Amino acid sequence: MPVHPEPPQLLQQKLLYRGEKFDFDVSALRLPNGSQGDWLCVRHPGGALAVPVTADGKLVLVRQYRFAVQGRLLEFPAGTVEPQESPEVTIKREIAEETGYRAHRWQKLGQFFLAPGYSDEIIYAFLAQDLELLDLPPAQDADEDIETVLMTPQALEQAILNGDAVDAKSICAFFMARAFLNF
Amino acid sequence: MPVHPEPPQLLQQKLLYRGEKFDFDVSALRLPNGSQGDWLCVRHPGGALAVPVTADGKLVLVRQYRFAVQGRLLEFPAGTVEPQESPEVTIKREIAEETGYRAHRWQKLGQFFLAPGYSDEIIYAFLAQDLELLDLPPAQDADEDIETVLMTPQALEQAILNGDAVDAKSICAFFMARAFLNF
Repeated sequence: MPVHPEPPQLLQQKLLYRGEKFDFDVSALRLPNGSQGDWLCVRHPGGALAVPVTADGKLVLVRQYRFAVQGRLLEFPAGTVEPQESPEVTIKREIAEETGYRAHRWQKLGQFFLAPGYSDEIIYAFLAQDLELLDLPPAQDADEDIETVLMTPQALEQAILNGDAVDAKSICAFFMARAFLNF
Repeated sequence: MPVHPEPPQLLQQKLLYRGEKFDFDVSALRLPNGSQGDWLCVRHPGGALAVPVTADGKLVLVRQYRFAVQGRLLEFPAGTVEPQESPEVTIKREIAEETGYRAHRWQKLGQFFLAPGYSDEIIYAFLAQDLELLDLPPAQDADEDIETVLMTPQALEQAILNGDAVDAKSICAFFMARAFLNF
């Protein structure tokens, strides 16, 4: 855990929805400062994300349909960590499914919380290099609607600054990859 | 909206929880690619965030208790947009409540989605300059447990890269502010 653990006192908890990828519950809590109330939470197993970099320095992104925002977002490939799975395994599966690439060199970039006001989801970000385009990429999940996009780091920076790339986890991971690779 | 709108076909929708700050629902949808199923969504009015910069170039952050991650996170001041409120009004209230500062110069930095897989929350990020420390700052919300932290941009970058600053919205906003101010 990337925080010093300081759990609240749990007074009561009610599962409101059990989903395929995450649950949603409401908890009556007493916080460390003594305040008491009900808090809602997405209970998520975490996500893994790759910043894939090609031999000629391009970044591999996906443009993906997202029902919640009713449109397509430019994102790095990512997916939900399955039960009993490590984030490293998750992201190797997801990068192949979403982009058709396999990476032969992996490094940890960091981790961060997406929406700590109401979700415990943590994203594990990795740098993926030595890419190989698979002859027979695995099938995408049936509900996914994704196309691959190659961009230079400079083009992605511009896309973030002018509002064409608006996915928080991808912006965070780009920040970390840039510091790591000095691009 | 920062995306080209392409709404899914809504077949059915059920409100699972009506919260004080956001709702949670499940929708039966047909997506643009024809796939059909149930999707869960946090329906959120959006958030507003400030990157406050003091006259001597320090950033004003808060260390805030977050029940969902059971610990304290280093974040920029931010808050939920209230009904019939503009993000500009939200952030002026929140920066005073959370840090005790008022800013006399505001600029838009950008906007982004926090968790588009299951939330429609958008964050509106602003740069806040010409800061004045209020003699009588407004009271914090009763359930908030917050302390103010001043840091140089270099120290915040290090905190992000070594895993001490792990809040996605704050990392994204720092990325945008740095490009804007060239620090």
